[in-house]
Amino acid sequence: MNLTITDVRLTPVLVADPPLLNTQGVHQPYTPRLIVEVETADGVVGVGETYGDTKYLELARPFAERLRGRQVSDLNGLFTVADEVAVDAARVLGQTDVGGLRGVQTADKLRLSVVSGFEVACLDALGRALGLPVHALLGGKVRDSVEYSAYLFYRWAAHPAGVPAETDDWGAALDPAGVVAQARRFTERHGFTSFKLKGGVFPPEEEIAAVRALAEAFPGHPLRLDPNGAWSVATSLKVARELGDVLEYLEDPALGTPAMAEVAAGTGVPLATNMCVTTFGEIEEAFTRGAVQVILSDHHYWGGLRNTRQLAAVCRTFGVGVSMHSNTHLGISLAAMTHVAATVPGLHHACDSHYPWQSEDVLTERLVFEGGRLAVPDAPGLGVELDRERLRRLHRRWLDDDGTLRDRDDAAAMRVAEPGWTAPAVPRW
Amino acid sequence: MNLTITDVRLTPVLVADPPLLNTQGVHQPYTPRLIVEVETADGVVGVGETYGDTKYLELARPFAERLRGRQVSDLNGLFTVADEVAVDAARVLGQTDVGGLRGVQTADKLRLSVVSGFEVACLDALGRALGLPVHALLGGKVRDSVEYSAYLFYRWAAHPAGVPAETDDWGAALDPAGVVAQARRFTERHGFTSFKLKGGVFPPEEEIAAVRALAEAFPGHPLRLDPNGAWSVATSLKVARELGDVLEYLEDPALGTPAMAEVAAGTGVPLATNMCVTTFGEIEEAFTRGAVQVILSDHHYWGGLRNTRQLAAVCRTFGVGVSMHSNTHLGISLAAMTHVAATVPGLHHACDSHYPWQSEDVLTERLVFEGGRLAVPDAPGLGVELDRERLRRLHRRWLDDDGTLRDRDDAAAMRVAEPGWTAPAVPRW
Repeated sequence: MNLTITDVRLTPVLVADPPLLNTQGVHQPYTPRLIVEVETADGVVGVGETYGDTKYLELARPFAERLRGRQVSDLNGLFTVADEVAVDAARVLGQTDVGGLRGVQTADKLRLSVVSGFEVACLDALGRALGLPVHALLGGKVRDSVEYSAYLFYRWAAHPAGVPAETDDWGAALDPAGVVAQARRFTERHGFTSFKLKGGVFPPEEEIAAVRALAEAFPGHPLRLDPNGAWSVATSLKVARELGDVLEYLEDPALGTPAMAEVAAGTGVPLATNMCVTTFGEIEEAFTRGAVQVILSDHHYWGGLRNTRQLAAVCRTFGVGVSMHSNTHLGISLAAMTHVAATVPGLHHACDSHYPWQSEDVLTERLVFEGGRLAVPDAPGLGVELDRERLRRLHRRWLDDDGTLRDRDDAAAMRVAEPGWTAPAVPRW
Repeated sequence: MNLTITDVRLTPVLVADPPLLNTQGVHQPYTPRLIVEVETADGVVGVGETYGDTKYLELARPFAERLRGRQVSDLNGLFTVADEVAVDAARVLGQTDVGGLRGVQTADKLRLSVVSGFEVACLDALGRALGLPVHALLGGKVRDSVEYSAYLFYRWAAHPAGVPAETDDWGAALDPAGVVAQARRFTERHGFTSFKLKGGVFPPEEEIAAVRALAEAFPGHPLRLDPNGAWSVATSLKVARELGDVLEYLEDPALGTPAMAEVAAGTGVPLATNMCVTTFGEIEEAFTRGAVQVILSDHHYWGGLRNTRQLAAVCRTFGVGVSMHSNTHLGISLAAMTHVAATVPGLHHACDSHYPWQSEDVLTERLVFEGGRLAVPDAPGLGVELDRERLRRLHRRWLDDDGTLRDRDDAAAMRVAEPGWTAPAVPRW
């Protein structure tokens, strides 16, 4: 068995995305993702996936160069490679800090997101080479299936007229009735029993009404509301008061640890975040101040599945809950999330996933939710197969793009419908 | 490849130990350890080692019963087994809290120490089955050798006359000159360049003089002093003041997190511990209060090598250093320490090990320090081989013991030389 990496392939793709609304704007009709393939001397190929915007690609390319000749089992060494690449990256990228929905976008987080794509590909290859599922490489599953939540969005029926885009039959959801109808469809299709509504789109009263409508339609089911930090502390506390009896948690009501700490001090509703704590460096202040009660890990941000387990250990140590965040992603990342979630003890909240919104994938078979859960694959590696024809097609779309869509920009997408739109200043309400 | 565990063997042994002094008394002439063997359906055998006192054995036996039929790769599941066994254990053991040099001895810590023996045996077996060294199962080594420190002890030349014991030619070390001579011999034999003196034996002035003598004999070398919590806060601060210019860190000068926090607040000398923070549950208070700057992990206490990595991640997140503690142990545990230490980033302090004091081992070949370092084995598993004849001999000694030595009790051993001795109340000075 030769575990030496002999080839690394990077394939940027553009993936269809519906017109989902958030506080910054609307999802582009196509979103960039990066597919990573790592091949060993024995011809074993592992796949990974991460964010695909230009800056990620710029970091991923020199990273890929340095991987050749290393052992696919050398997962700790990926961080050494990241440090080496970072020296160049600092020059190329500067101290990136673009803010937005991914929290503060530091060069560190960018680098770890790139690591995650390679780490998952290496784990997949290693698992295939050894005949072990990825969860076994993480110490073994402690559950046979992982629960996901329905990720509800305010949305338009279609992208603006004249914009090249895929279509779907979900229709618009712009009021409580639309949100409940969407939730019903999610439940019928996938069996989800937890619901998260992406908020920050309409004034809080309207979103409170939508959550109330969900609570009436699905009594006793866990509900969450996530305005992506769009609210002031006072508004956050008002929403917490009005929805405290039905919320499982409130997600990033206000932006940043000091504001979240103020909200936490004033309410018994647990606060979750994937914005104010997105790197290990942000944990100490947030935990010490009691700013958050649940960390929503995104394994891309945190540098992979093994770092996600370490994050979970830190959270456990400080009595903070853990669950999973999701941005637009494909089946490779969903499989990766499922493997790591299967190994984390004390996972008491259903994980988020955009996957049901993605009509396209690069796998031969889509992952299927049953009863709101995904079965944990026991096949070697991630247990998914790359469909090269599908990959080629989505890559072709990326190649054909003139650069407009290669960097996700929800505000720019919104300007197509509302000229002059800029992402609102925070707090918006 | 069949990774199912088909057999588990537990072999308690008694291992020769020199008359090393500490604040509680003196090491017994023989110390109990437990050797764990895990065998898979394919006949692959992995070995582990942990504490061997009666209470550990009482927990290990039902644990071993439950392992049969499980996968050797199911390392996360070991904690589930531990929880199951704990239900019985609570009945058998009660809420154990014996205190002493291992910190507060809770049922939780006892259970995790038992897990560690099985976890290491499973990792060894898994590595052998897959053809990978244990460090690769932990994500790969980030260094090729691990640095250890010389573990200096005040000691007698021999155990009390009339007591069955092995002998050695190290002679007594009861004053600064004796300590320096011992350090020289350690350096000549093993190449150590860091020195730790086990203190709490003589009044602080004498131990300060010994450290001063070491600093003169080995200028610029890292020095540590560990009185096992024998001092008051005032004494701790006095020692810190007098030795601040030569100490790498002061280890457990005072007992418990509140006292350590007081010491830490009054000195710039870093404080290390393997007594006030020995489980994940003790971390939050200690870190929040800034009580410790270096955690000395004992992979037995913490539940194995993978938990040790998680501990290191927690420490890294809070800017706390990490290194390794050691109690009397054999080559299996030393190999295990070396594998995990090889994978932990930012290991800035040489690890402790009693191993040089152990003239006996259960391995076919002893591990050899060169330049104060151990090379990280790249052979499958731990890279060590059990010597069944040696194991049989040390087990015979355990069988022949009338029960006096099966539970380590340094105060009882001291009473043989000094009738009426009891472990001094803390703070002693």
